[in-house]
Amino acid sequence: MIVGRHIIAELYGVKEELIAKEEVVRSIVEEVVDKAELTKVGSVYKQFNPHGVTGIVLIAESHVSIHTWPEYGLVNLDIFTCGDTSKVEKAFKLFLEKFKPESYRHYVLDRG
Amino acid sequence: MIVGRHIIAELYGVKEELIAKEEVVRSIVEEVVDKAELTKVGSVYKQFNPHGVTGIVLIAESHVSIHTWPEYGLVNLDIFTCGDTSKVEKAFKLFLEKFKPESYRHYVLDRG
Repeated sequence: MIVGRHIIAELYGVKEELIAKEEVVRSIVEEVVDKAELTKVGSVYKQFNPHGVTGIVLIAESHVSIHTWPEYGLVNLDIFTCGDTSKVEKAFKLFLEKFKPESYRHYVLDRG
Repeated sequence: MIVGRHIIAELYGVKEELIAKEEVVRSIVEEVVDKAELTKVGSVYKQFNPHGVTGIVLIAESHVSIHTWPEYGLVNLDIFTCGDTSKVEKAFKLFLEKFKPESYRHYVLDRG
């Protein structure tokens, strides 16, 4: 029984100003969740000192999580949605447009 | 640059009374996070109607997420920790002890 699709991605070469501060990361994540028509239930973010952010958004369709490493230009991104699998692809595309990584790798996992 | 370890698991044949209600799932998740010595920052849970729960815990070391499907006896579990990789293994072992699945599959992914 496949219940959803999970994209697990590492983004490389992301500019520090996009991923160092919580307010910037939060703004990007919430915009993507909204544009991908995911249903936000709640979210939690944490700013690391001196920089780096971790954040999770519980969506009715599952979750989005992000962990940023400005010192490496790295983002660990997870997008897991149940139901309409086109939403996970749409959200991933939007994240790539926002973070503009020099390169990335991603795994697509059917969950269940 | 490997920054952490992520266990992605599907648990099968889990008893409905363990995964149908938010208070039971929340209690198990929070106990495991505590026993595995993970540092909880915040959490969000949602009860689905008539049953099923989705929850996510932001930990300083990354995150734990869970989505339950009582109608299938299924749990989608993710545990992602940075730093000490023994904690992710410990947390997974504790979840298996709590949910007692008839079987499971899991993937271990080095993130970064």
